[in-house]
Amino acid sequence: MAKKLNIGIIGYGFMGRTHSNAYCKAPHFFDLPYEPVLKLACGLEEDKAKAFAERWGYQSYTTDWHKVIEDDKIDVVDICVPNNLHAEIALAAAKAGKAICCEKPLALNTTQAQKMVEAVEKAGVPNLVSFNYRRVPAVTLAKQLIDEGRLGKIFHYRANFLQDWTISSQVPQGGMATWRLDVKAAGSGVTGDLLAHCIDTAMWHNGPITSVCAMTETFIKERRHAETGKLEPVGIDDACTFFCHFDNGSLGNFESTRYARGHKALYTFEINGEHASIAWDLHDLHRLSYFDHRDDSIVRGWRSVHVTDGDMPYMDKWWVPGLQIGYEHTFVHQVADFLENMAAGKPTSPTFREALATQSVCDAVLTSANNKKWETVKY
Amino acid sequence: MAKKLNIGIIGYGFMGRTHSNAYCKAPHFFDLPYEPVLKLACGLEEDKAKAFAERWGYQSYTTDWHKVIEDDKIDVVDICVPNNLHAEIALAAAKAGKAICCEKPLALNTTQAQKMVEAVEKAGVPNLVSFNYRRVPAVTLAKQLIDEGRLGKIFHYRANFLQDWTISSQVPQGGMATWRLDVKAAGSGVTGDLLAHCIDTAMWHNGPITSVCAMTETFIKERRHAETGKLEPVGIDDACTFFCHFDNGSLGNFESTRYARGHKALYTFEINGEHASIAWDLHDLHRLSYFDHRDDSIVRGWRSVHVTDGDMPYMDKWWVPGLQIGYEHTFVHQVADFLENMAAGKPTSPTFREALATQSVCDAVLTSANNKKWETVKY
Amino acid sequence: MAKKLNIGIIGYGFMGRTHSNAYCKAPHFFDLPYEPVLKLACGLEEDKAKAFAERWGYQSYTTDWHKVIEDDKIDVVDICVPNNLHAEIALAAAKAGKAICCEKPLALNTTQAQKMVEAVEKAGVPNLVSFNYRRVPAVTLAKQLIDEGRLGKIFHYRANFLQDWTISSQVPQGGMATWRLDVKAAGSGVTGDLLAHCIDTAMWHNGPITSVCAMTETFIKERRHAETGKLEPVGIDDACTFFCHFDNGSLGNFESTRYARGHKALYTFEINGEHASIAWDLHDLHRLSYFDHRDDSIVRGWRSVHVTDGDMPYMDKWWVPGLQIGYEHTFVHQVADFLENMAAGKPTSPTFREALATQSVCDAVLTSANNKKWETVKY
Amino acid sequence: MAKKLNIGIIGYGFMGRTHSNAYCKAPHFFDLPYEPVLKLACGLEEDKAKAFAERWGYQSYTTDWHKVIEDDKIDVVDICVPNNLHAEIALAAAKAGKAICCEKPLALNTTQAQKMVEAVEKAGVPNLVSFNYRRVPAVTLAKQLIDEGRLGKIFHYRANFLQDWTISSQVPQGGMATWRLDVKAAGSGVTGDLLAHCIDTAMWHNGPITSVCAMTETFIKERRHAETGKLEPVGIDDACTFFCHFDNGSLGNFESTRYARGHKALYTFEINGEHASIAWDLHDLHRLSYFDHRDDSIVRGWRSVHVTDGDMPYMDKWWVPGLQIGYEHTFVHQVADFLENMAAGKPTSPTFREALATQSVCDAVLTSANNKKWETVKY
Repeated sequence: MAKKLNIGIIGYGFMGRTHSNAYCKAPHFFDLPYEPVLKLACGLEEDKAKAFAERWGYQSYTTDWHKVIEDDKIDVVDICVPNNLHAEIALAAAKAGKAICCEKPLALNTTQAQKMVEAVEKAGVPNLVSFNYRRVPAVTLAKQLIDEGRLGKIFHYRANFLQDWTISSQVPQGGMATWRLDVKAAGSGVTGDLLAHCIDTAMWHNGPITSVCAMTETFIKERRHAETGKLEPVGIDDACTFFCHFDNGSLGNFESTRYARGHKALYTFEINGEHASIAWDLHDLHRLSYFDHRDDSIVRGWRSVHVTDGDMPYMDKWWVPGLQIGYEHTFVHQVADFLENMAAGKPTSPTFREALATQSVCDAVLTSANNKKWETVKY
Repeated sequence: MAKKLNIGIIGYGFMGRTHSNAYCKAPHFFDLPYEPVLKLACGLEEDKAKAFAERWGYQSYTTDWHKVIEDDKIDVVDICVPNNLHAEIALAAAKAGKAICCEKPLALNTTQAQKMVEAVEKAGVPNLVSFNYRRVPAVTLAKQLIDEGRLGKIFHYRANFLQDWTISSQVPQGGMATWRLDVKAAGSGVTGDLLAHCIDTAMWHNGPITSVCAMTETFIKERRHAETGKLEPVGIDDACTFFCHFDNGSLGNFESTRYARGHKALYTFEINGEHASIAWDLHDLHRLSYFDHRDDSIVRGWRSVHVTDGDMPYMDKWWVPGLQIGYEHTFVHQVADFLENMAAGKPTSPTFREALATQSVCDAVLTSANNKKWETVKY
Repeated sequence: MAKKLNIGIIGYGFMGRTHSNAYCKAPHFFDLPYEPVLKLACGLEEDKAKAFAERWGYQSYTTDWHKVIEDDKIDVVDICVPNNLHAEIALAAAKAGKAICCEKPLALNTTQAQKMVEAVEKAGVPNLVSFNYRRVPAVTLAKQLIDEGRLGKIFHYRANFLQDWTISSQVPQGGMATWRLDVKAAGSGVTGDLLAHCIDTAMWHNGPITSVCAMTETFIKERRHAETGKLEPVGIDDACTFFCHFDNGSLGNFESTRYARGHKALYTFEINGEHASIAWDLHDLHRLSYFDHRDDSIVRGWRSVHVTDGDMPYMDKWWVPGLQIGYEHTFVHQVADFLENMAAGKPTSPTFREALATQSVCDAVLTSANNKKWETVKY
Repeated sequence: MAKKLNIGIIGYGFMGRTHSNAYCKAPHFFDLPYEPVLKLACGLEEDKAKAFAERWGYQSYTTDWHKVIEDDKIDVVDICVPNNLHAEIALAAAKAGKAICCEKPLALNTTQAQKMVEAVEKAGVPNLVSFNYRRVPAVTLAKQLIDEGRLGKIFHYRANFLQDWTISSQVPQGGMATWRLDVKAAGSGVTGDLLAHCIDTAMWHNGPITSVCAMTETFIKERRHAETGKLEPVGIDDACTFFCHFDNGSLGNFESTRYARGHKALYTFEINGEHASIAWDLHDLHRLSYFDHRDDSIVRGWRSVHVTDGDMPYMDKWWVPGLQIGYEHTFVHQVADFLENMAAGKPTSPTFREALATQSVCDAVLTSANNKKWETVKY
């Protein structure tokens, strides 16, 4: 029987659910070196924390996150709270020698992120940032195809993350459901929330981004606060576009907005190489588009690969060819990889250090947009 | 706290996994009147039964299915074994007063199915046949749109279930992995395995099928048996096409094959009504295609509806708009509906009686193909 | 300078336009052995015939088709009138030694068609039936791929031709615009008008159809006549579905209807072979879908081939890769092939004899539907 | 009978063909106020000019473009030569009082373009620049939908023009086939050749662009000259990305490259408004994607509109619903509009003046890329 690994989760919102589901499901599908035990759940409101713990089978609950850190039985601290709380909790958890899984983006800014990296590296604790889209099988397959050299020299990397849920001026900022619109809780708007995913995947696929040039926009200048009802200036970026240079000589073009009518969560990327190209789209996450110029010319075209076969990343663990998995499975894969690497004494990507690089690009993007000029990324 | 409901599962294969996963997940996402308890797992080989029970958290295991029936603590018997064992187990379970969830198709033929219906109705036990595709949110949404009258009078119902995994003559018949090719275990080929799904959904959407005319084919006439290695005649239908009349005056066209290169599990349907049409495809199960002739003519076209919003069937229980669920969730929905109806004393569709109607159509299809003439469906 | 070839066209309707356009365009894009000269246009109403001749540059016009036959200067008689007039005109044209291009279907029935074949073969005149969809570059490419053996043994051939323009009971029958709904003018409904195209392409791709089993339906039983305004019984088939055996052992499934809401002219086919599959769709006629099982498994998927490159059939004559051609170009290709073959003394496919085979299948389909039983095709 | 309008064309390359075809076809499909007469064709090499004139039916040919200008019978001068020759010819044609149709981009730069505008306005001659993609029916329909206010306030305009034909370093620069890679003939690379189209359409759809920020790249630094064989520095931009502000407050994101493997001529745009969004793609030019947030939420999705019906722009002139037209038809529409407006004494959009605005944006884009900073567009 696998050794038990006690999980303490902080945050019972959307991410609290995705992470809890992952701890529950992973042992049913993966042969894990540890058995995750849902030990302690923490959240601000007692009623909700209790209900959350009961639903997911946490053995107890608390409303004080320090209790999670102080609990000797907890092996892993899982941070699922708004961005402005990541740093403080992670620093404490590192000090207490806990393994840490932290939601993205790592921090409000590079300065915070830098401290968090130092803390986990000094403490020598396993650490992971939950950029979950890397672990969509099609996205992992894209990485594999690039690493195999199938694309050849890469010329272009393009990514978009388009949503439409904040177009109405009646959507408030702040509070439980809309803290992502409150710059104090979120640090930034689409840049940290959405582009951070694109940047993480892009640098994993295509190497470091060296310089950026960005434009941001805030279409709705004032919104009511969800808790106070008071109309307040909006501090986040509603939309952000940037282009950039990668270290390998390729060009990047990134865009995110929450004002793209018709797109719920359309994260797409496309990579153009000398020999082949790849494209992907979160709205059909189980497919990968692939074009190979080396095919016979009369039957050459974009292939729509249904990523559900046993020889594709992670898919030997699920069902049979043709039967798709979904969004939640990315977190299951993350847990499986994290536990396996932990047992082997190996880091799990993206580590805090890797997420710091993403944070550095985000900060350079925001600086560039503010200064209206090119910005070199400082790592 | 919800009352506990003890589950005894028979069969640890592919369906054993999907059902077990559903019992584990349902309480995390649905507010259920019962708490399912994985009590007893049963399968032929002891090692595998033990490992299966451990992985999924069943409290014990057995290699004798009679033990499941005889166990007083078991509330629900879940039948996940090959088709030729459904009848005997279900009859015993009904007699023992157990609620029954049975994998599809209900039986080897109408005669068996008729007895099973009589048994569960006489015993008055909750009963359900696992035609899971009804509970893909997009498929349930199609039912809702039809019931709302959006399509108007229906002219055509078309369904295909195309696979390509048996094209090689080296694929054996019989045994654990390939019993679906052995007529003794499966009863029929694509008709019972795949078309049964299409027929179940079609009659749910569009009412009874009254008469059918079918063609079947067995492309590979002999296959090695997986266990004995002996070359034996193939008794199943590799491919089956039929057209039919529905009671409402519409025409049906159905086809299934396991020789359609390029299709892993492409279950599609399309319904053409006077005002609107609907189409769906299992390879992108989270989308529904909808065409409404009442749209302004210059912007009229097929709409690709991304079925991930909270106002769509089942989707308020999952994530946020744009984030898709997958194949396994159909079984979670089935468990949730079954338990909720059970608590309310209501039947859950498709019941054994409804599955008998599907069986009757399947039998008429096979008879028609054998006799090479039209066949009236006998209900 | 190429020798002049004098064209006499009979019929100024939809097909009159497509053929005239083809004669005008072909010399601009193809190097032809003849220069087509638009000599004489014929149609029932003088005003319209005159206007038609002026628009397209015919040197003169007439309202009596015998004048076209009797005119010694006419080399090619092009028949673009309703189906019930094909036979009489073609017989006269053959007798007069004219080359003949006849719209499809060849005749009202096999008996007529047989006589027409005998006439053109006895007269030794070049003859062609305008099953134009063969000459969509993607459809021609499909033929090439099959002939190269890329698909291997073929298991399934599926074709649909779906429209929705007759759903309203207010659409009349008969007259200039709606003669296709009048059984006296058209001979049959969707079978001769639409399925004839599918059958022609299918037998070109996949060889002879040997036996068929069909179902037809007439949803609207009475329609007003366009000219008399009188309500009359509808004699055509509104919908027709049939399955069949091909001589090569593969199975066919064909369907056509004018009651498929959302489809304007959706002619699709899909061919499943041992190694590869092909699919095509008239609504995107410049693309061919191709799946090859021999591709590396992790990047295997349906390819969408944009059939616009110079190494694809006919496409060296048009623009540059990526720039699509459309419907009308099929007729240009037909004219180019017809003239080239004529100069070389070779037949152009489909000849009257080939179209007779298609007619035989159509008749067998209609007989099968009437008799509700399988029908062997008599060639 | 319509008054004759004598056309003199300069340039027998790709564009010479598209324009000649348009003059031939337009009268067959449109009721024109003038009958275009192919009077005189001009090109550098005598053999080719002669063959071109014969193929298209020009009454004579010349190798000296001044002859076209000097010929009193010529009414319209059609300029289809490389960009570096546009200005000189257009200035001469304006001075001679000819109507002018000029290929895009209007000139090598804004300075030239400004002079050309002054010349045609001073001369008072009809003038048109051949940004043909405006007249794809789906693109024209997009303009209509925007003008009807269906999108509401516009937030984003995105356009890409992706090709892959210059990836090989063996592709030469200069000469007849590859002058687009020679900065002396073309003025710029993808900016003037491809982005100019995107900019023209964008400003037509969405109003003036006020400021831009751009990045360009030349991936292959040296190429052999097609005529001399000498290796020379490449002066064009291989790729160009820019973002911008529109005068109406919306944001733009544009990208073009000839290094996007898998894309032959993928011109796409997407417009996101408050209520609705539109997307289009040159590879399927007969479709328009449309999303309307005001649709019932459970059947809301992107609609694929097959732009082939008679109530859609230009489509009443062609075939029947479902039958697509192609690339070449954009030029036919252009000729039809040009002649109709000429007869009515009205300008045809885009005029030289409108094309000057596009040139100004192109110049600002190139300046911004060179200076690596934002650039205000000077009109």
